[in-house]
Amino acid sequence: MILLTFSTRDNTPRLGVQRDDTVIDVTALARSTGAEVPADLSTLINQGSAGLAALTALVASDQAPQFSLPIADVTVHAPLRPGKIIGVGLNYTEHVAESARTLDTDKDLPQRPVLFSKPGTAVVGPGEPIRHNANLTNQLDWECEVAVVIGRTAKNVSAADALDYVFGYSIINDISARDQRRGGQWFFSKGQDSYAPFGPVIRTADDLTDPHGLDLSLRVNGEVKQKSNSRYMLFKIPELIEDITSGMTLEPGDVIATGSPAGVGASFVPQQFLTPGDVVECTVESIGTLSNPVIDAR
Amino acid sequence: MILLTFSTRDNTPRLGVQRDDTVIDVTALARSTGAEVPADLSTLINQGSAGLAALTALVASDQAPQFSLPIADVTVHAPLRPGKIIGVGLNYTEHVAESARTLDTDKDLPQRPVLFSKPGTAVVGPGEPIRHNANLTNQLDWECEVAVVIGRTAKNVSAADALDYVFGYSIINDISARDQRRGGQWFFSKGQDSYAPFGPVIRTADDLTDPHGLDLSLRVNGEVKQKSNSRYMLFKIPELIEDITSGMTLEPGDVIATGSPAGVGASFVPQQFLTPGDVVECTVESIGTLSNPVIDAR
Repeated sequence: MILLTFSTRDNTPRLGVQRDDTVIDVTALARSTGAEVPADLSTLINQGSAGLAALTALVASDQAPQFSLPIADVTVHAPLRPGKIIGVGLNYTEHVAESARTLDTDKDLPQRPVLFSKPGTAVVGPGEPIRHNANLTNQLDWECEVAVVIGRTAKNVSAADALDYVFGYSIINDISARDQRRGGQWFFSKGQDSYAPFGPVIRTADDLTDPHGLDLSLRVNGEVKQKSNSRYMLFKIPELIEDITSGMTLEPGDVIATGSPAGVGASFVPQQFLTPGDVVECTVESIGTLSNPVIDAR
Repeated sequence: MILLTFSTRDNTPRLGVQRDDTVIDVTALARSTGAEVPADLSTLINQGSAGLAALTALVASDQAPQFSLPIADVTVHAPLRPGKIIGVGLNYTEHVAESARTLDTDKDLPQRPVLFSKPGTAVVGPGEPIRHNANLTNQLDWECEVAVVIGRTAKNVSAADALDYVFGYSIINDISARDQRRGGQWFFSKGQDSYAPFGPVIRTADDLTDPHGLDLSLRVNGEVKQKSNSRYMLFKIPELIEDITSGMTLEPGDVIATGSPAGVGASFVPQQFLTPGDVVECTVESIGTLSNPVIDAR
Protein backbone atom coordinates (compact mmCIF):
# COMPACT_ATOMS: atom_id res chain seq x y z
CA MET A 1 0.00 0.00 0.00
CA ILE A 2 1.15 3.55 -0.70
CA LEU A 3 0.30 5.93 2.12
CA LEU A 4 0.50 9.67 2.30
CA THR A 5 -0.63 12.72 4.22
CA PHE A 6 -2.66 15.19 2.19
CA SER A 7 -5.00 18.11 2.44
CA THR A 8 -7.49 19.83 0.22
CA ARG A 9 -8.35 23.49 0.48
CA ASP A 10 -10.97 22.83 3.13
CA ASN A 11 -9.37 20.41 5.55
CA THR A 12 -6.42 19.73 7.78
CA PRO A 13 -3.77 17.22 6.73
CA ARG A 14 -4.99 13.62 6.97
CA LEU A 15 -4.24 10.08 5.90
CA GLY A 16 -4.65 9.03 2.29
CA VAL A 17 -4.00 5.93 0.23
CA GLN A 18 -2.52 6.47 -3.20
CA ARG A 19 -3.82 4.35 -6.07
CA ASP A 20 -2.40 5.25 -9.47
CA ASP A 21 -3.06 8.95 -9.93
CA THR A 22 -5.65 9.21 -7.21
CA VAL A 23 -5.76 9.53 -3.43
CA ILE A 24 -8.44 7.74 -1.44
CA ASP A 25 -9.68 10.07 1.29
CA VAL A 26 -9.63 7.47 4.03
CA THR A 27 -11.28 9.64 6.66
CA ALA A 28 -14.26 10.42 4.42
CA LEU A 29 -14.54 6.80 3.29
CA ALA A 30 -14.49 5.56 6.89
CA ARG A 31 -17.16 8.04 7.87
CA SER A 32 -19.33 6.66 5.09
CA THR A 33 -18.83 2.98 5.91
CA GLY A 34 -18.76 3.42 9.70
CA ALA A 35 -15.25 1.95 9.89
CA GLU A 36 -12.73 3.31 12.37
CA VAL A 37 -9.40 4.30 10.93
CA PRO A 38 -6.87 6.80 12.23
CA ALA A 39 -6.78 10.29 10.79
CA ASP A 40 -3.00 10.39 10.52
CA LEU A 41 -0.07 8.20 9.63
CA SER A 42 1.63 8.32 13.05
CA THR A 43 -1.45 6.90 14.73
CA LEU A 44 -1.78 4.23 12.04
CA ILE A 45 1.81 3.12 12.58
CA ASN A 46 1.23 2.91 16.33
CA GLN A 47 -1.71 0.59 15.73
CA GLY A 48 0.61 -2.00 14.22
CA SER A 49 -0.56 -4.76 11.90
CA ALA A 50 -4.18 -4.52 13.09
CA GLY A 51 -4.37 -0.92 11.90
CA LEU A 52 -2.91 -1.77 8.54
CA ALA A 53 -5.28 -4.74 8.12
CA ALA A 54 -8.30 -2.55 8.90
CA LEU A 55 -7.12 0.05 6.41
CA THR A 56 -6.52 -2.58 3.74
CA ALA A 57 -10.06 -3.89 4.19
CA LEU A 58 -11.50 -0.38 4.09
CA VAL A 59 -9.85 0.67 0.85
CA ALA A 60 -10.93 -2.63 -0.75
CA SER A 61 -14.58 -1.69 -0.20
CA ASP A 62 -16.81 -0.95 -3.18
CA GLN A 63 -17.28 2.59 -1.95
CA ALA A 64 -13.57 3.48 -2.16
CA PRO A 65 -13.70 4.89 -5.69
CA GLN A 66 -16.35 7.41 -4.62
CA PHE A 67 -13.84 8.90 -2.19
CA SER A 68 -10.92 9.13 -4.59
CA LEU A 69 -9.49 12.48 -5.55
CA PRO A 70 -7.08 13.20 -8.39
CA ILE A 71 -3.66 13.49 -6.76
CA ALA A 72 -3.06 16.62 -8.83
CA ASP A 73 -5.89 18.32 -6.93
CA VAL A 74 -4.56 17.79 -3.40
CA THR A 75 -1.59 19.09 -1.41
CA VAL A 76 0.76 16.33 -0.31
CA HIS A 77 2.58 16.93 2.98
CA ALA A 78 5.46 15.17 4.71
CA PRO A 79 4.06 11.76 5.72
CA LEU A 80 4.64 12.42 9.43
CA ARG A 81 6.98 14.13 11.86
CA PRO A 82 9.44 11.54 13.16
CA GLY A 83 10.41 11.45 16.83
CA LYS A 84 13.94 11.06 15.60
CA ILE A 85 15.71 10.91 12.27
CA ILE A 86 18.97 8.99 12.32
CA GLY A 87 21.22 9.61 9.37
CA VAL A 88 23.95 7.28 8.15
CA GLY A 89 27.01 8.97 6.75
CA LEU A 90 29.41 7.46 4.24
CA ASN A 91 27.25 4.42 3.47
CA TYR A 92 28.01 4.07 -0.26
CA THR A 93 31.57 3.22 -1.37
CA GLU A 94 31.97 5.90 -4.02
CA HIS A 95 30.55 8.55 -1.71
CA VAL A 96 33.21 7.61 0.88
CA ALA A 97 35.85 8.27 -1.79
CA GLU A 98 34.42 11.60 -2.96
CA SER A 99 33.90 12.80 0.63
CA ALA A 100 37.51 12.01 1.52
CA ARG A 101 38.63 14.19 -1.39
CA THR A 102 36.43 17.17 -0.57
CA LEU A 103 34.95 17.00 2.93
CA ASP A 104 37.82 15.99 5.25
CA THR A 105 36.33 12.59 6.02
CA ASP A 106 38.32 9.37 6.27
CA LYS A 107 39.26 7.65 2.99
CA ASP A 108 38.89 4.17 4.50
CA LEU A 109 35.48 2.54 4.54
CA PRO A 110 33.84 2.96 7.96
CA GLN A 111 34.05 -0.11 10.18
CA ARG A 112 30.81 0.80 11.93
CA PRO A 113 27.89 2.91 10.67
CA VAL A 114 28.61 6.64 10.98
CA LEU A 115 25.47 7.88 12.73
CA PHE A 116 24.17 11.41 13.11
CA SER A 117 20.75 12.96 13.58
CA LYS A 118 18.39 15.56 12.22
CA PRO A 119 15.61 17.01 14.41
CA GLY A 120 11.89 16.81 13.62
CA THR A 121 11.91 20.58 13.05
CA ALA A 122 14.04 20.01 9.93
CA VAL A 123 11.25 18.14 8.11
CA VAL A 124 9.40 19.63 5.16
CA GLY A 125 7.07 17.93 2.71
CA PRO A 126 7.14 17.62 -1.07
CA GLY A 127 7.01 20.98 -2.80
CA GLU A 128 7.91 22.89 0.33
CA PRO A 129 10.95 25.13 0.06
CA ILE A 130 14.48 24.30 1.12
CA ARG A 131 15.70 27.45 2.88
CA HIS A 132 18.92 28.96 1.53
CA ASN A 133 20.26 31.55 3.96
CA ALA A 134 23.35 33.18 2.48
CA ASN A 135 24.19 34.62 5.90
CA LEU A 136 24.80 31.07 7.08
CA THR A 137 25.92 29.09 4.05
CA ASN A 138 27.39 29.22 0.59
CA GLN A 139 27.62 25.43 0.41
CA LEU A 140 24.08 24.10 0.49
CA ASP A 141 24.23 20.49 -0.75
CA TRP A 142 21.92 17.60 -1.59
CA GLU A 143 21.83 13.85 -0.81
CA CYS A 144 19.10 11.52 -2.07
CA GLU A 145 18.45 8.69 0.40
CA VAL A 146 16.12 5.77 1.03
CA ALA A 147 14.27 6.45 4.31
CA VAL A 148 13.27 3.53 6.54
CA VAL A 149 10.17 4.19 8.67
CA ILE A 150 10.12 2.16 11.88
CA GLY A 151 6.88 0.35 12.71
CA ARG A 152 7.44 -1.10 16.18
CA THR A 153 9.51 -0.28 19.23
CA ALA A 154 12.91 -1.82 18.57
CA LYS A 155 15.73 -2.46 21.04
CA ASN A 156 18.45 -5.09 20.74
CA VAL A 157 17.04 -6.36 17.46
CA SER A 158 19.15 -8.82 15.45
CA ALA A 159 19.75 -8.25 11.75
CA ALA A 160 17.81 -11.47 11.06
CA ASP A 161 14.67 -10.01 12.66
CA ALA A 162 15.22 -6.37 11.75
CA LEU A 163 12.88 -6.07 8.77
CA ASP A 164 9.96 -7.13 11.01
CA TYR A 165 10.34 -3.74 12.67
CA VAL A 166 10.05 -1.75 9.45
CA PHE A 167 6.72 -0.13 8.61
CA GLY A 168 7.72 1.07 5.19
CA TYR A 169 10.02 3.12 3.02
CA SER A 170 10.16 6.68 1.82
CA ILE A 171 12.69 9.27 0.60
CA ILE A 172 14.73 11.85 2.48
CA ASN A 173 16.82 14.53 0.84
CA ASP A 174 19.62 14.93 3.40
CA ILE A 175 20.37 18.62 2.90
CA SER A 176 23.64 19.93 4.37
CA ALA A 177 25.24 23.35 4.77
CA ARG A 178 28.77 22.00 4.34
CA ASP A 179 30.25 25.17 5.84
CA GLN A 180 28.25 24.79 9.06
CA ARG A 181 29.99 21.73 10.42
CA ARG A 182 31.00 22.68 13.93
CA GLY A 183 34.13 21.12 15.42
CA GLY A 184 33.51 18.32 12.95
CA GLN A 185 29.94 17.74 14.14
CA TRP A 186 27.26 17.57 11.44
CA PHE A 187 24.19 18.42 13.53
CA PHE A 188 23.92 22.14 12.72
CA SER A 189 25.13 21.48 9.18
CA LYS A 190 22.37 18.95 8.55
CA GLY A 191 19.71 19.84 11.11
CA GLN A 192 18.49 23.30 10.15
CA ASP A 193 14.84 24.01 9.34
CA SER A 194 13.88 22.54 5.93
CA TYR A 195 17.05 20.40 5.71
CA ALA A 196 15.02 17.17 5.74
CA PRO A 197 12.60 17.10 2.82
CA PHE A 198 10.63 13.86 3.39
CA GLY A 199 8.08 12.01 1.27
CA PRO A 200 6.08 12.10 -0.90
CA VAL A 201 4.69 8.75 0.31
CA ILE A 202 5.47 5.79 2.53
CA ARG A 203 5.32 2.48 0.71
CA THR A 204 4.54 -0.26 3.21
CA ALA A 205 7.09 -3.00 3.75
CA ASP A 206 4.67 -5.79 2.72
CA ASP A 207 4.52 -4.07 -0.64
CA LEU A 208 8.24 -3.37 -1.07
CA THR A 209 9.99 -6.50 0.06
CA ASP A 210 13.46 -5.81 -1.35
CA PRO A 211 14.66 -2.36 -0.26
CA HIS A 212 18.13 -3.19 -1.58
CA GLY A 213 17.31 -3.32 -5.24
CA LEU A 214 16.03 0.20 -5.79
CA ASP A 215 17.38 2.66 -8.31
CA LEU A 216 17.79 6.08 -6.79
CA SER A 217 18.68 9.33 -8.48
CA LEU A 218 18.74 13.05 -7.88
CA ARG A 219 18.37 15.92 -10.33
CA VAL A 220 18.96 19.63 -9.91
CA ASN A 221 17.02 21.71 -12.43
CA GLY A 222 16.51 18.52 -14.43
CA GLU A 223 20.21 17.60 -14.60
CA VAL A 224 21.15 14.24 -13.10
CA LYS A 225 23.65 14.57 -10.23
CA GLN A 226 23.27 11.26 -8.39
CA LYS A 227 22.38 7.89 -9.88
CA SER A 228 22.87 4.61 -8.07
CA ASN A 229 21.05 1.65 -6.58
CA SER A 230 20.35 0.84 -2.94
CA ARG A 231 22.17 -2.50 -3.39
CA TYR A 232 25.41 -0.55 -3.01
CA MET A 233 24.78 0.43 0.62
CA LEU A 234 27.79 -0.58 2.72
CA PHE A 235 25.70 -1.35 5.80
CA LYS A 236 22.37 -2.77 4.71
CA ILE A 237 19.12 -1.90 6.49
CA PRO A 238 19.08 -4.99 8.76
CA GLU A 239 22.65 -4.28 9.91
CA LEU A 240 21.79 -0.63 10.51
CA ILE A 241 18.82 -1.57 12.69
CA GLU A 242 20.88 -4.12 14.61
CA ASP A 243 23.64 -1.60 15.17
CA ILE A 244 21.43 1.33 16.19
CA THR A 245 19.21 -0.73 18.49
CA SER A 246 22.22 -2.22 20.26
CA GLY A 247 22.28 1.07 22.17
CA MET A 248 19.25 3.10 21.22
CA THR A 249 15.52 2.42 21.20
CA LEU A 250 13.81 3.01 17.87
CA GLU A 251 10.15 3.97 18.19
CA PRO A 252 7.24 3.79 15.75
CA GLY A 253 7.57 6.61 13.24
CA ASP A 254 11.32 7.05 13.76
CA VAL A 255 13.22 7.27 10.48
CA ILE A 256 16.62 6.03 9.36
CA ALA A 257 18.06 7.95 6.39
CA THR A 258 20.27 5.24 4.93
CA GLY A 259 22.97 7.33 3.30
CA SER A 260 23.68 8.92 -0.02
CA PRO A 261 25.43 7.58 -3.12
CA ALA A 262 28.14 9.52 -4.95
CA GLY A 263 27.38 12.77 -6.70
CA VAL A 264 26.90 15.30 -3.93
CA GLY A 265 27.56 18.89 -4.91
CA ALA A 266 30.77 19.16 -2.89
CA SER A 267 32.33 16.39 -4.99
CA PHE A 268 32.13 18.18 -8.33
CA VAL A 269 35.12 20.07 -9.76
CA PRO A 270 34.39 22.90 -9.40
CA GLN A 271 32.00 22.31 -6.54
CA GLN A 272 28.30 22.82 -7.18
CA PHE A 273 25.91 24.02 -4.52
CA LEU A 274 22.23 24.89 -4.35
CA THR A 275 21.11 28.49 -4.78
CA PRO A 276 17.69 30.14 -4.64
CA GLY A 277 15.60 29.26 -7.67
CA ASP A 278 16.93 25.72 -8.00
CA VAL A 279 14.63 22.71 -7.91
CA VAL A 280 15.91 19.42 -6.47
CA GLU A 281 14.20 16.13 -7.30
CA CYS A 282 14.97 12.83 -5.57
CA THR A 283 13.58 9.69 -7.14
CA VAL A 284 13.60 6.25 -5.57
CA GLU A 285 12.21 3.34 -7.58
CA SER A 286 8.86 1.99 -6.30
CA ILE A 287 8.44 4.99 -4.00
CA GLY A 288 8.25 8.13 -6.09
CA THR A 289 9.80 11.53 -6.57
CA LEU A 290 10.38 14.13 -3.87
CA SER A 291 10.70 17.58 -5.41
CA ASN A 292 11.58 20.79 -3.55
CA PRO A 293 12.41 24.32 -4.66
CA VAL A 294 15.22 26.28 -3.05
CA ILE A 295 14.32 29.76 -1.81
CA ASP A 296 16.21 32.75 -0.47
CA ALA A 297 15.46 32.66 3.27
CA ARG A 298 17.37 35.69 4.44
CA MET B 1 8.96 28.35 41.24
CA ILE B 2 10.48 24.88 41.31
CA LEU B 3 8.59 22.41 39.14
CA LEU B 4 8.90 18.67 38.85
CA THR B 5 7.19 15.55 37.60
CA PHE B 6 6.41 13.01 40.30
CA SER B 7 4.35 9.96 41.07
CA THR B 8 3.21 8.14 44.16
CA ARG B 9 2.51 4.44 44.24
CA ASP B 10 -1.06 4.94 43.08
CA ASN B 11 -0.82 7.40 40.21
CA THR B 12 0.79 8.20 36.93
CA PRO B 13 3.48 10.87 36.71
CA ARG B 14 2.10 14.38 37.08
CA LEU B 15 3.06 17.97 37.73
CA GLY B 16 4.26 19.04 41.16
CA VAL B 17 5.60 22.22 42.73
CA GLN B 18 8.48 21.80 45.14
CA ARG B 19 8.47 23.88 48.31
CA ASP B 20 11.30 23.12 50.71
CA ASP B 21 11.12 19.38 51.37
CA THR B 22 7.60 18.92 50.10
CA VAL B 23 5.84 18.57 46.77
CA ILE B 24 2.47 20.19 46.19
CA ASP B 25 0.26 17.76 44.28
CA VAL B 26 -1.06 20.31 41.83
CA THR B 27 -3.60 18.02 40.19
CA ALA B 28 -5.22 17.12 43.51
CA LEU B 29 -5.16 20.73 44.70
CA ALA B 30 -6.78 21.94 41.47
CA ARG B 31 -9.50 19.30 41.76
CA SER B 32 -10.27 20.62 45.22
CA THR B 33 -10.36 24.30 44.30
CA GLY B 34 -11.97 23.83 40.89
CA ALA B 35 -9.00 25.46 39.17
CA GLU B 36 -7.78 24.20 35.81
CA VAL B 37 -4.10 23.40 35.60
CA PRO B 38 -2.29 21.04 33.29
CA ALA B 39 -1.38 17.57 34.50
CA ASP B 40 2.12 17.67 33.06
CA LEU B 41 5.01 20.03 32.56
CA SER B 42 5.02 19.95 28.76
CA THR B 43 1.43 21.18 28.64
CA LEU B 44 2.20 23.85 31.22
CA ILE B 45 5.11 25.15 29.15
CA ASN B 46 2.91 25.27 26.06
CA GLN B 47 0.40 27.45 27.94
CA GLY B 48 3.03 30.16 28.27
CA SER B 49 2.89 32.89 30.90
CA ALA B 50 -0.86 32.46 31.45
CA GLY B 51 -0.30 28.86 32.56
CA LEU B 52 2.46 29.84 34.92
CA ALA B 53 0.36 32.68 36.38
CA ALA B 54 -2.56 30.33 37.00
CA LEU B 55 -0.26 27.82 38.67
CA THR B 56 1.32 30.52 40.84
CA ALA B 57 -2.12 31.64 42.02
CA LEU B 58 -3.17 28.07 42.69
CA VAL B 59 -0.21 27.15 44.87
CA ALA B 60 -0.63 30.41 46.81
CA SER B 61 -4.09 29.30 47.95
CA ASP B 62 -4.72 28.46 51.59
CA GLN B 63 -5.49 24.89 50.67
CA ALA B 64 -2.05 24.19 49.17
CA PRO B 65 -0.50 22.83 52.38
CA GLN B 66 -3.22 20.14 52.56
CA PHE B 67 -1.98 18.76 49.26
CA SER B 68 1.72 18.71 50.11
CA LEU B 69 3.61 15.43 50.28
CA PRO B 70 7.06 14.89 51.76
CA ILE B 71 9.40 14.77 48.76
CA ALA B 72 11.04 11.72 50.31
CA ASP B 73 7.75 9.83 49.84
CA VAL B 74 7.35 10.38 46.09
CA THR B 75 9.19 9.22 43.00
CA VAL B 76 10.65 12.09 40.99
CA HIS B 77 10.84 11.54 37.23
CA ALA B 78 12.53 13.42 34.41
CA PRO B 79 10.66 16.73 34.18
CA LEU B 80 9.55 16.06 30.60
CA ARG B 81 10.64 14.46 27.36
CA PRO B 82 12.12 17.15 25.12
CA GLY B 83 11.34 17.24 21.42
CA LYS B 84 15.02 17.83 20.93
CA ILE B 85 18.08 18.12 23.13
CA ILE B 86 20.86 20.22 21.64
CA GLY B 87 24.22 19.74 23.28
CA VAL B 88 27.08 22.22 23.17
CA GLY B 89 30.56 20.72 23.03
CA LEU B 90 33.72 22.39 24.23
CA ASN B 91 31.98 25.32 25.92
CA TYR B 92 34.31 25.77 28.93
CA THR B 93 37.94 26.81 28.31
CA GLU B 94 39.63 24.19 30.48
CA HIS B 95 37.47 21.44 29.03
CA VAL B 96 38.62 22.48 25.54
CA ALA B 97 42.21 21.99 26.71
CA GLU B 98 41.62 18.61 28.36
CA SER B 99 39.63 17.35 25.37
CA ALA B 100 42.41 18.31 22.97
CA ARG B 101 44.83 16.22 25.04
CA THR B 102 42.64 13.12 25.26
CA LEU B 103 39.76 13.17 22.81
CA ASP B 104 41.23 14.31 19.47
CA THR B 105 39.38 17.62 19.47
CA ASP B 106 40.87 20.94 18.40
CA LYS B 107 43.09 22.74 20.93
CA ASP B 108 41.91 26.16 19.79
CA LEU B 109 38.75 27.62 21.30
CA PRO B 110 35.78 27.08 18.98
CA GLN B 111 34.81 30.14 16.94
CA ARG B 112 31.17 29.02 16.81
CA PRO B 113 29.25 26.78 19.21
CA VAL B 114 29.95 23.07 18.56
CA LEU B 115 26.43 21.66 18.39
CA PHE B 116 25.28 18.05 18.60
CA SER B 117 22.09 16.32 19.69
CA LYS B 118 20.74 13.61 21.92
CA PRO B 119 17.36 12.00 21.18
CA GLY B 120 14.38 12.01 23.57
CA THR B 121 14.85 8.26 24.02
CA ALA B 122 18.12 8.98 25.86
CA VAL B 123 16.35 10.73 28.76
CA VAL B 124 16.08 9.16 32.21
CA GLY B 125 15.02 10.77 35.46
CA PRO B 126 16.76 11.14 38.81
CA GLY B 127 17.59 7.80 40.40
CA GLU B 128 17.10 5.90 37.15
CA PRO B 129 20.06 3.83 36.01
CA ILE B 130 22.68 4.83 33.48
CA ARG B 131 23.15 1.71 31.34
CA HIS B 132 26.70 0.40 31.08
CA ASN B 133 26.94 -2.15 28.27
CA ALA B 134 30.45 -3.60 28.20
CA ASN B 135 29.74 -5.04 24.74
CA LEU B 136 29.58 -1.46 23.46
CA THR B 137 31.84 0.61 25.69
CA ASN B 138 34.70 0.60 28.13
CA GLN B 139 34.79 4.39 28.22
CA LEU B 140 31.51 5.55 29.76
CA ASP B 141 32.02 9.16 30.85
CA TRP B 142 30.17 11.95 32.68
CA GLU B 143 29.56 15.67 32.06
CA CYS B 144 27.55 17.88 34.42
CA GLU B 145 25.72 20.63 32.55
CA VAL B 146 23.21 23.42 33.04
CA ALA B 147 20.12 22.61 30.94
CA VAL B 148 18.07 25.43 29.43
CA VAL B 149 14.39 24.59 28.90
CA ILE B 150 12.80 26.58 26.08
CA GLY B 151 9.43 28.18 26.80
CA ARG B 152 8.31 29.64 23.47
CA THR B 153 8.83 28.88 19.81
CA ALA B 154 12.08 30.61 18.91
CA LYS B 155 13.47 31.37 15.44
CA ASN B 156 15.90 34.15 14.53
CA VAL B 157 16.04 35.39 18.10
CA SER B 158 18.68 37.98 19.00
CA ALA B 159 20.91 37.47 22.03
CA ALA B 160 19.32 40.59 23.54
CA ASP B 161 15.88 38.96 23.49
CA ALA B 162 16.95 35.36 24.02
CA LEU B 163 16.22 34.97 27.72
CA ASP B 164 12.56 35.85 27.05
CA TYR B 165 12.34 32.46 25.35
CA VAL B 166 13.63 30.49 28.32
CA PHE B 167 11.11 28.72 30.53
CA GLY B 168 13.60 27.62 33.14
CA TYR B 169 16.75 25.73 34.04
CA SER B 170 17.58 22.19 35.01
CA ILE B 171 20.52 19.75 34.95
CA ILE B 172 21.64 17.26 32.31
CA ASN B 173 24.37 14.71 32.80
CA ASP B 174 25.75 14.43 29.27
CA ILE B 175 26.84 10.79 29.35
CA SER B 176 29.18 9.62 26.54
CA ALA B 177 30.59 6.29 25.44
CA ARG B 178 33.88 7.84 24.25
CA ASP B 179 34.70 4.72 22.21
CA GLN B 180 31.43 4.96 20.24
CA ARG B 181 32.23 8.08 18.27
CA ARG B 182 31.59 7.17 14.67
CA GLY B 183 33.64 8.86 11.96
CA GLY B 184 34.06 11.67 14.49
CA GLN B 185 30.30 12.04 15.02
CA TRP B 186 29.12 12.08 18.63
CA PHE B 187 25.49 11.05 18.13
CA PHE B 188 25.80 7.33 18.92
CA SER B 189 28.44 8.09 21.55
CA LYS B 190 26.12 10.50 23.38
CA GLY B 191 22.64 9.42 22.28
CA GLN B 192 22.15 5.91 23.64
CA ASP B 193 19.31 5.04 25.99
CA SER B 194 19.89 6.50 29.48
CA TYR B 195 22.70 8.80 28.29
CA ALA B 196 20.70 11.93 29.20
CA PRO B 197 19.85 11.91 32.90
CA PHE B 198 17.68 15.03 33.31
CA GLY B 199 16.26 16.76 36.37
CA PRO B 200 15.43 16.60 39.19
CA VAL B 201 13.47 19.86 38.76
CA ILE B 202 13.03 22.84 36.48
CA ARG B 203 13.53 26.14 38.20
CA THR B 204 11.58 28.79 36.34
CA ALA B 205 13.46 31.67 34.74
CA ASP B 206 11.62 34.33 36.77
CA ASP B 207 13.07 32.66 39.84
CA LEU B 208 16.61 32.19 38.54
CA THR B 209 17.51 35.37 36.80
CA ASP B 210 21.27 34.88 36.50
CA PRO B 211 22.03 31.48 34.97
CA HIS B 212 25.68 32.51 34.60
CA GLY B 213 26.59 32.64 38.25
CA LEU B 214 25.86 29.06 39.25
CA ASP B 215 28.34 26.72 40.88
CA LEU B 216 28.21 23.30 39.30
CA SER B 217 29.94 20.13 40.38
CA LEU B 218 29.92 16.40 39.77
CA ARG B 219 30.83 13.55 42.10
CA VAL B 220 31.37 9.88 41.41
CA ASN B 221 30.86 7.73 44.50
CA GLY B 222 31.15 10.90 46.56
CA GLU B 223 34.47 12.02 45.08
CA VAL B 224 34.46 15.41 43.34
CA LYS B 225 35.45 15.17 39.66
CA GLN B 226 34.09 18.43 38.23
CA LYS B 227 33.79 21.79 40.00
CA SER B 228 33.25 25.06 38.19
CA ASN B 229 30.80 27.88 37.71
CA SER B 230 28.51 28.62 34.77
CA ARG B 231 30.15 32.05 34.41
CA TYR B 232 32.97 30.27 32.59
CA MET B 233 30.84 29.22 29.63
CA LEU B 234 32.53 30.34 26.40
CA PHE B 235 29.25 30.96 24.59
CA LYS B 236 26.70 32.22 27.09
CA ILE B 237 23.04 31.18 26.93
CA PRO B 238 21.83 34.22 24.96
CA GLU B 239 24.54 33.69 22.35
CA LEU B 240 23.69 29.98 22.13
CA ILE B 241 20.01 30.74 21.53
CA GLU B 242 20.86 33.38 18.91
CA ASP B 243 23.20 31.00 17.14
CA ILE B 244 20.93 27.95 17.19
CA THR B 245 17.81 29.86 16.15
CA SER B 246 19.64 31.48 13.25
CA GLY B 247 19.00 28.17 11.48
CA MET B 248 16.81 25.99 13.62
CA THR B 249 13.47 26.48 15.34
CA LEU B 250 13.45 25.83 19.07
CA GLU B 251 10.11 24.68 20.40
CA PRO B 252 8.58 24.75 23.88
CA GLY B 253 10.14 21.97 25.94
CA ASP B 254 13.28 21.72 23.82
CA VAL B 255 16.46 21.65 25.89
CA ILE B 256 19.94 23.08 25.38
CA ALA B 257 22.65 21.28 27.37
CA THR B 258 25.12 24.12 27.71
CA GLY B 259 28.38 22.18 27.95
CA SER B 260 30.58 20.69 30.58
CA PRO B 261 33.46 22.17 32.57
CA ALA B 262 36.82 20.39 32.98
CA GLY B 263 37.07 17.12 34.86
CA VAL B 264 35.55 14.54 32.56
CA GLY B 265 36.77 10.97 33.10
CA ALA B 266 38.74 10.86 29.86
CA SER B 267 40.94 13.73 31.07
CA PHE B 268 42.36 11.97 34.13
CA VAL B 269 45.76 10.25 34.03
CA PRO B 270 45.09 7.38 34.00
CA GLN B 271 41.65 7.83 32.52
CA GLN B 272 38.64 7.12 34.75
CA PHE B 273 35.39 5.77 33.42
CA LEU B 274 32.07 4.70 34.92
CA THR B 275 31.46 1.06 35.76
CA PRO B 276 28.42 -0.77 37.14
CA GLY B 277 27.85 0.04 40.80
CA ASP B 278 29.03 3.64 40.54
CA VAL B 279 26.78 6.53 41.54
CA VAL B 280 27.09 9.87 39.71
CA GLU B 281 25.76 13.07 41.25
CA CYS B 282 25.50 16.39 39.40
CA THR B 283 24.80 19.48 41.46
CA VAL B 284 23.94 22.90 40.09
CA GLU B 285 23.43 25.75 42.53
CA SER B 286 19.80 26.91 42.88
CA ILE B 287 18.55 23.86 40.99
CA GLY B 288 19.48 20.73 42.92
CA THR B 289 21.28 17.43 42.62
CA LEU B 290 20.72 14.83 39.91
CA SER B 291 21.88 11.41 41.10
CA ASN B 292 22.00 8.24 39.02
CA PRO B 293 23.42 4.78 39.60
CA VAL B 294 25.31 2.94 36.87
CA ILE B 295 24.13 -0.61 36.12
CA ASP B 296 25.37 -3.50 34.03
CA ALA B 297 23.03 -3.49 31.03
CA ARG B 298 24.38 -6.45 29.10
